[in-house]
Amino acid sequence: MRSVDKDTITEAFLGYCHADTDPRLRFVLERLVHHLHDFTKEVGLTHEEWRKAIGLLTGAGEISGPERNEFVLFSDVLGLSSLVDMVNSPDDATPSSVLGPFHILGAPDLPVGGDLRKDNAGAPVIVRGRIIDSTGAPISTAEMEIWQTADNGLYSNQDPAQPDYNLRAHMTVGADGVYAFTTVRPAPYTVPDDGPVGELLQATGRHPWRPSHFHFIVTADGYRNLVTELFPDDDPYLDQDAVFGVREGLIVHYRRKDTIEPADQAQVAAELTVPYYTVDFDLQLSKTA
Amino acid sequence: MRSVDKDTITEAFLGYCHADTDPRLRFVLERLVHHLHDFTKEVGLTHEEWRKAIGLLTGAGEISGPERNEFVLFSDVLGLSSLVDMVNSPDDATPSSVLGPFHILGAPDLPVGGDLRKDNAGAPVIVRGRIIDSTGAPISTAEMEIWQTADNGLYSNQDPAQPDYNLRAHMTVGADGVYAFTTVRPAPYTVPDDGPVGELLQATGRHPWRPSHFHFIVTADGYRNLVTELFPDDDPYLDQDAVFGVREGLIVHYRRKDTIEPADQAQVAAELTVPYYTVDFDLQLSKTA
Repeated sequence: MRSVDKDTITEAFLGYCHADTDPRLRFVLERLVHHLHDFTKEVGLTHEEWRKAIGLLTGAGEISGPERNEFVLFSDVLGLSSLVDMVNSPDDATPSSVLGPFHILGAPDLPVGGDLRKDNAGAPVIVRGRIIDSTGAPISTAEMEIWQTADNGLYSNQDPAQPDYNLRAHMTVGADGVYAFTTVRPAPYTVPDDGPVGELLQATGRHPWRPSHFHFIVTADGYRNLVTELFPDDDPYLDQDAVFGVREGLIVHYRRKDTIEPADQAQVAAELTVPYYTVDFDLQLSKTA
Repeated sequence: MRSVDKDTITEAFLGYCHADTDPRLRFVLERLVHHLHDFTKEVGLTHEEWRKAIGLLTGAGEISGPERNEFVLFSDVLGLSSLVDMVNSPDDATPSSVLGPFHILGAPDLPVGGDLRKDNAGAPVIVRGRIIDSTGAPISTAEMEIWQTADNGLYSNQDPAQPDYNLRAHMTVGADGVYAFTTVRPAPYTVPDDGPVGELLQATGRHPWRPSHFHFIVTADGYRNLVTELFPDDDPYLDQDAVFGVREGLIVHYRRKDTIEPADQAQVAAELTVPYYTVDFDLQLSKTA
């Protein structure tokens, strides 16, 4: 393959891969290089544009570290992270959504009905529902991780003013599959926009905001893990989430209650005050193959 | 655009770009994201594969610095750098080839016919030709930069044993457009393979070798700059250059001479010894538009 030219370079690349190459790797690389080369030819990528792209990647490397990964953020704002979620989401489960960078291990156990709100500012919100299988039956062995921002839009590990593990919990459901907790409404926030990703957002007139959300990981033996988020139907950024995390099936309504309903109070440990809100959502898991 | 799904996310990305976005940037991003999303869907990219890709990019950032850019190297071994050269190469000029990372500014002037070989090991090689326009007429105002490895496969800035600017020069041609110099034959060498790019090469059974080459930048007022390389027709790595730099039109023959031809000796300042070699190649430039 001496005569590498515009029309043969993609084939040349494949010819260079050894026959022993793992077939899946070979397939993924073949499609990657095919698309990369087609893109370059279609747009007639200039040397200056190539240098700009290399500069963005180099800058992403420089700004990344243990606390921040700009490559993940690029993947997020280009819709790649969400698309990976979508192509791996089974049809018979709640849609999955981006994990994001704010989940941390070791959140304290909270019993069903327990209180996450504690001294956080904001009206009480009861979040509740069942963890079910694709037939609607409860999964009695399910566990979930819960994390969210305070009403200042910051997670506990971003905000020295919050106690460790504020608004984070691990919950194990009972035989009825029911989960429930009291908390406050999380707030919209921005993804970091002071690096190369911020440059891209600015050049395309995009804002860095994400709609507010509850973040969950739900697991149960014999079922596929579910990472997902619940978004309020009145969030100002619902129609343009910077990281493409919103799905129609993940939008919830905060029902305002101006008098305390005994059934609500019976479900949670904290003493309700008015106004309070209820958010109802069943989390559905798909069986592992 | 609430209902972002597999089929609408590419369109959603475009919808997020503000109408004021620079049209060229919008077009390039549109094609980039289109290909990125199609790739992801075609291969059904898994979360594990996505994490692996993010890990390679993160590792590339970590190993890059003032002396090394792993993103350029990824672009090189995926054929992207060469493809950018190809799509920007005018048809009426010598094919261009990768600039690579070893060019440095400030090489000393060498007159036409001057000697680059000095005390370097290896038989003398005369490299010569004319710098011409698309009609074959000499370009009397042309200048060129020349750089190459010593016969150990290292450039002067990689090898403390070599004098500064060893085997590097800047040459200005005369009215006849002729360039000529004596030197030694460069050697094949490997691209750095101790980082993420090396991981990719290893996983696909590829070697990191580049065929030996003379590297030139040719410039003249009113003409497009030419960055190119000349490869010997008997190089063992000619058929699989790790960075896809070889073009049919850049392959030269080293003619061996066992007696000194007076015409050869007349063209160069250094006293020839046998055996010596001659490499003849005309460098053709395209007028700027």
